[in-house]
Amino acid sequence: MSDRVCNFSPGPAVLPVPVLEQAQRELVALPGLGISALEISHRSKWFEGVLAETKALLTELLAIPAGYSIVFLQGGSNLQFSMIPMNFLRGTGKPADYVVSGTWGQKAVQEAQKEGPANVAWDGKADNYSRLPNAGEPKLTPDAAYVHITSNETIQGVQFQADPAFGSSPLVCDASSEFLSRPVNVAQYGMIYACAQKNAGIAGVTVCILRNDFLERVPADLPTMLDFKAMVKNDSLYNTPPVFAIYITNLICKWLQSEVGGLTKMAERNREKARLLYEAVDSGFYRGHAQPACRSQMNVTFRLPSEELEKAFVKQAEKHQLYELKGHRSVGGIRASIYNAMPLEGVKTLRSFMDEFRKRNG
Amino acid sequence: MSDRVCNFSPGPAVLPVPVLEQAQRELVALPGLGISALEISHRSKWFEGVLAETKALLTELLAIPAGYSIVFLQGGSNLQFSMIPMNFLRGTGKPADYVVSGTWGQKAVQEAQKEGPANVAWDGKADNYSRLPNAGEPKLTPDAAYVHITSNETIQGVQFQADPAFGSSPLVCDASSEFLSRPVNVAQYGMIYACAQKNAGIAGVTVCILRNDFLERVPADLPTMLDFKAMVKNDSLYNTPPVFAIYITNLICKWLQSEVGGLTKMAERNREKARLLYEAVDSGFYRGHAQPACRSQMNVTFRLPSEELEKAFVKQAEKHQLYELKGHRSVGGIRASIYNAMPLEGVKTLRSFMDEFRKRNG
Repeated sequence: MSDRVCNFSPGPAVLPVPVLEQAQRELVALPGLGISALEISHRSKWFEGVLAETKALLTELLAIPAGYSIVFLQGGSNLQFSMIPMNFLRGTGKPADYVVSGTWGQKAVQEAQKEGPANVAWDGKADNYSRLPNAGEPKLTPDAAYVHITSNETIQGVQFQADPAFGSSPLVCDASSEFLSRPVNVAQYGMIYACAQKNAGIAGVTVCILRNDFLERVPADLPTMLDFKAMVKNDSLYNTPPVFAIYITNLICKWLQSEVGGLTKMAERNREKARLLYEAVDSGFYRGHAQPACRSQMNVTFRLPSEELEKAFVKQAEKHQLYELKGHRSVGGIRASIYNAMPLEGVKTLRSFMDEFRKRNG
Repeated sequence: MSDRVCNFSPGPAVLPVPVLEQAQRELVALPGLGISALEISHRSKWFEGVLAETKALLTELLAIPAGYSIVFLQGGSNLQFSMIPMNFLRGTGKPADYVVSGTWGQKAVQEAQKEGPANVAWDGKADNYSRLPNAGEPKLTPDAAYVHITSNETIQGVQFQADPAFGSSPLVCDASSEFLSRPVNVAQYGMIYACAQKNAGIAGVTVCILRNDFLERVPADLPTMLDFKAMVKNDSLYNTPPVFAIYITNLICKWLQSEVGGLTKMAERNREKARLLYEAVDSGFYRGHAQPACRSQMNVTFRLPSEELEKAFVKQAEKHQLYELKGHRSVGGIRASIYNAMPLEGVKTLRSFMDEFRKRNG
């Protein structure tokens, strides 16, 4: 694998090498089938098996309790920002509450407000989205249609350290950039959704986990493709799903289960990777963006003493095969995304580079 | 390639072998980049290049005139069935006209009717969707918001033999199952759209070609992901597009241009493939579904004297490595989908099998 670089991209992001290698081996023809996963019918027995197995693996990995459904949709989190209020706000006569902890939370509430009354129950803007609210901080509406949170903000690098509890309305969670990185108490949520291109696969598929009684609120006459109930009823096969993307998610779930050993083990690996980088951030010279108690284990964001040094950091890192370290254009600085598939070795290389860069420039 | 079978699936469908082989070679790491196309950022220079090149190739292949935009979306034709009336019917105060020539046309108008007044200007149901209307047949609304057609009905196997002219309202065409199979006079259309998984790539990306002045009608405050104007303005990068799917479309466009020699050459190949099968259909025993003047060159649909014989046909065909020949569950019979990437050799094998099966059972 010496021809591969360390890819710290925030998404689409690095995938496990064994997954890439299996996909490569099978790319021209699936063993025993003579048809590529890029070509095979979504109505084939093979794909039926992939779909059922992926749902079973997700159920096992996340310990999803009975009474939940899993669907695979398209359009990423951005489409969810509209689908969720269409399905769960429209026609309820109630407002929805949004906890806005970064750029993705902002986008979510902006789209929701096109659909109906969506309150900003808390907004971290005053602190430049460097922290998260305590349980009592958000101004929640009693009996809100739902409360929406973003469990990890990819751009700012803040992450809820445990499943948050905000009131008693159904909790809807955009888990895009931390999905499958650690165990979750699914029972606390009405809905969890995640675009796949961080920890769960490639761009082009979104995993939605919905509590069945929450689904009962979906109004009639929605566009079928935007109707969660129709999607669940048809088991992700109302239209042609992104077959290849779901197959990659399947391979990743298998990797998580059999090579990593489940989400508790995955979380341990992720904690260690994050620790290595935050330790460097806290050694001076660098300045972390997120408050320590809210730090993301997926997206490590920090600044250097000057923009010139930040540019030099990104440029020199590439000489060590460390790529995609530039922070999001809206925030600046440095961001190292260290999703599940980023190997410890890659993080160690970055850590060494950070130490060395500090010594040379600090 | 001896481990591959002949895949007559209606979609997802067979891809050109050179495309599969290139994707396979590059799957673990793109040459010189060290990152897989499954992992690379949509903001990377590489993907910017792929996107620009794919648009340029489509423009050249289809001779798209100035004043049109190309965007790559998700959700397939089914999402388009809702997006189109949201963007071009809502708020116009006019009805839209739908020419319904098969199952996909039916689905399109049903979704449109959720959004606003959508007339069935013509419906081929009385003839079991075996024919298409003449220019004068549809009852068109003067000054309709648009006229929607399905240029090829995948399930019934009927296809407009040339770009149809229906009144003077903008013509919106679902070209999903014939896109890139022959030249098109794009200037006749307000919009052409196609899910990729027939001739243009894999499931998970939809190509939309829109006339810029038609785009000006898009109302304000649509959900951003469903707003064609926002999608065009952001050059398919408002959200994370399905990077890998667009890369495969890119490889297919290159194959069409450099290995096939363009769409006129592609159409010649497709005509010859279709001719071979319809000749067998017309030799007795078999009974074609579509009237000869409306026959699809992509989906060849026919019946046998009994359902038992149809079952035997499908089963015995598999012994010759001929797969996915069963007609759609809503119609029955046999369907051979012979998209661009189905080689002439595959069609010849099917033709021989059809002749032999007739001799044995006729």
